[in-house]
Amino acid sequence: MSELTMQEKGMSAKKAAITLSALDESQRNEALKAIAEALNTHRKEIAEANRRDIARSKEEQLAAPLLSRLIFDYNEIDGVIEGIASLITLPDPLGHITLATELDEGLDLYRVTSPIGVIGVIFESRPDAFVQIATLCLKSGNAILLKGGREALETNRILYEVISEASEKAGVPHGWIQNMESRDEVTEMLALSDCIDLIIPRGSNEFVKYIMDHSNIPVMGHSDGICHLYIDGDADLEKALAIAVDSKTQYIAACNTLETLLVHRDVASRFLPEVFSALQNKGVEVRGDEAVRNIVPTETATEEDFKTEYLDLILSIKVVDHLQDAIDHINTYGSGHTDAIVTENTEAQKTFLALVDSACVFVNCSTRFSDGFRFGFGAEVGISTSKIHARGPVGLDGLISYKYQLIGHGDRVAPYADGEKTFTHRPLENKKPF
Amino acid sequence: MSELTMQEKGMSAKKAAITLSALDESQRNEALKAIAEALNTHRKEIAEANRRDIARSKEEQLAAPLLSRLIFDYNEIDGVIEGIASLITLPDPLGHITLATELDEGLDLYRVTSPIGVIGVIFESRPDAFVQIATLCLKSGNAILLKGGREALETNRILYEVISEASEKAGVPHGWIQNMESRDEVTEMLALSDCIDLIIPRGSNEFVKYIMDHSNIPVMGHSDGICHLYIDGDADLEKALAIAVDSKTQYIAACNTLETLLVHRDVASRFLPEVFSALQNKGVEVRGDEAVRNIVPTETATEEDFKTEYLDLILSIKVVDHLQDAIDHINTYGSGHTDAIVTENTEAQKTFLALVDSACVFVNCSTRFSDGFRFGFGAEVGISTSKIHARGPVGLDGLISYKYQLIGHGDRVAPYADGEKTFTHRPLENKKPF
Repeated sequence: MSELTMQEKGMSAKKAAITLSALDESQRNEALKAIAEALNTHRKEIAEANRRDIARSKEEQLAAPLLSRLIFDYNEIDGVIEGIASLITLPDPLGHITLATELDEGLDLYRVTSPIGVIGVIFESRPDAFVQIATLCLKSGNAILLKGGREALETNRILYEVISEASEKAGVPHGWIQNMESRDEVTEMLALSDCIDLIIPRGSNEFVKYIMDHSNIPVMGHSDGICHLYIDGDADLEKALAIAVDSKTQYIAACNTLETLLVHRDVASRFLPEVFSALQNKGVEVRGDEAVRNIVPTETATEEDFKTEYLDLILSIKVVDHLQDAIDHINTYGSGHTDAIVTENTEAQKTFLALVDSACVFVNCSTRFSDGFRFGFGAEVGISTSKIHARGPVGLDGLISYKYQLIGHGDRVAPYADGEKTFTHRPLENKKPF
Repeated sequence: MSELTMQEKGMSAKKAAITLSALDESQRNEALKAIAEALNTHRKEIAEANRRDIARSKEEQLAAPLLSRLIFDYNEIDGVIEGIASLITLPDPLGHITLATELDEGLDLYRVTSPIGVIGVIFESRPDAFVQIATLCLKSGNAILLKGGREALETNRILYEVISEASEKAGVPHGWIQNMESRDEVTEMLALSDCIDLIIPRGSNEFVKYIMDHSNIPVMGHSDGICHLYIDGDADLEKALAIAVDSKTQYIAACNTLETLLVHRDVASRFLPEVFSALQNKGVEVRGDEAVRNIVPTETATEEDFKTEYLDLILSIKVVDHLQDAIDHINTYGSGHTDAIVTENTEAQKTFLALVDSACVFVNCSTRFSDGFRFGFGAEVGISTSKIHARGPVGLDGLISYKYQLIGHGDRVAPYADGEKTFTHRPLENKKPF
């Protein structure tokens, strides 16, 4: 394979995107099936490439948690093949008519879902992400430029070769998937606003901000995940304890992990000793404000703590006087990711859902549910804390745009501007362009 | 009124946005009614302020077309009052459930439409835009920072005072609308990513690019409107002529005005003389490629012409060999705004709609229909050529985001991660959170 420049990769993807957008559902699903079969056929070479990546990364003294995320063995390959099978069963996100209006007799307007076009994704060192992102994009008719972690270089390279060969044999236009292997290519990609429609950076807050600062292309990414759980005065404290422990400790390093617990004054003296002891048993360091420390012997939580995404066995706790206090704290210190309330009071539930300005607002359940798989989206390309385009876990729905299609019979604007004709603007029921 | 800093204006709008988002439909419509009544009551002061703006602008030798756009007399005031009345009748864009899934028994997920939050709009010197944008934002529950043209300074100031006073009396939280009067404020606004969720710049391509280059805040704007009309070999040439003349000449300075006409070789010798003569009668200078010039005596169209948004009485024409040629030309030289085909051939219509990668793709009608009012959106805040968030004419739908609401009964993630429980992911029909 001759090496393309980044500009050529972008142009090739843009060209392929047009044809790809017009493939029908069965063609895209057939290509997904071909990819799953090819991954199965080439599992030996893939696993070998991955073992070389792991050996090299060990020599380079990669940290143990990162090493474990790098593993892509037969078990992991089975996982992504299963994932593709379930992606095939999901409804087609393209071609849905989301608005249909008769502008006037014989002049019908339709808004039809369509792919975004070309998406650039920069992601961490998990090879399963390579397959998930590529197949989500194919299912939604988008061309894709992928840049994985340097640690997974050989694994990603063979995954790219297997996926592009299988899909192109199955009729997907050549060039729809492009692999990037260097940071320079990422830098060059940020300038390709002529051929790339969206960049999705996965990684640290600083990294996402860096991408936003250095590109004119729209960016879909999340900033911090500073998630809150508020235990209301009318909470069922048994539920509250289970949810708090799950939200903080079920997986410590995720963006939907709990970072600050807010407790209503009325239940603080009953709830805090219980939750403090349960968290200590799980190895969590608790930091409390003065009211908390008057009840349980925690470390001190400072203003800085409430602004921090620990991604670690640390939790800050604050006592609040009422629901509005909790909401104000969340809207001030939170990152608009995921925030939950525990209460049996329906009015408090409604107020919390209405006034907390976050992508995911939960009632009586763990913040850890905030995830594309758990939400039933098949997979996710990331979680968005922006309120533009997609918000929260982003699955297929976040990878689509739409077109307006207007079907007329020689219609001119002049008669409407001159007042000879008027628009009917009548909703069209069950009508299609063709 | 004490003068706020830009930072204070942003924070004030952000605070108001939370409460505003929770107002119900009738409260927002009552406030819109109060605004319409106040505009009626204060029409004398508004028209006087506008006359002062016009007098000053005349002294400053503002060009005649800009002067005519600046006029905001009783007639214009009646127009915006009518516009508000029709906005009130539009369905509420908030609180719609766009997805409902049972994740497991007693754990229900809802995706509910919600406002974006705080929107900054920079617009040209038409005072009616001030009222339209402010009321669209109020209807959709968004707080708004407005910067109008310097020419309309006094008109916008009194419109701001009338709208904020009337809406706040009607229960809309103080600070939801903010007026900006200086360029320095716009510069400062671009840095307020903590309190502003979206910027909508209306103006030239260079201006929109400048805003994108100088802010981390998502920008919704359009680049050029290089719109095409393709006359297919199977076109009804009578329709083609009417549509071509309307698309080019109905209003010359709009972004949806035709800039390049593509004509199939098979009909070129019949169609070109007709359209050339009709356009000449309307004062349009025609520039053609060689094949065009072999049929009619036009000026020469260069490569540069096909990349140009004239916004003037100039049209470039090119002869193409087949439909795919036309599509390739549009996807290469177009700006993804509005492109139309004239043909009686259904297959050609379908292919054009599928493969032209533009916000608006039209069959047998004028490109000039591409507009929020004509589409039945009540009004528009602009036309987007981005494929992220909103595409095409942007009305209320483009001003909303959504929240995920998950209602559980003490649910933890651990049992699902451990394989004790599995998700049902069953669609919920006609169920609401409360």
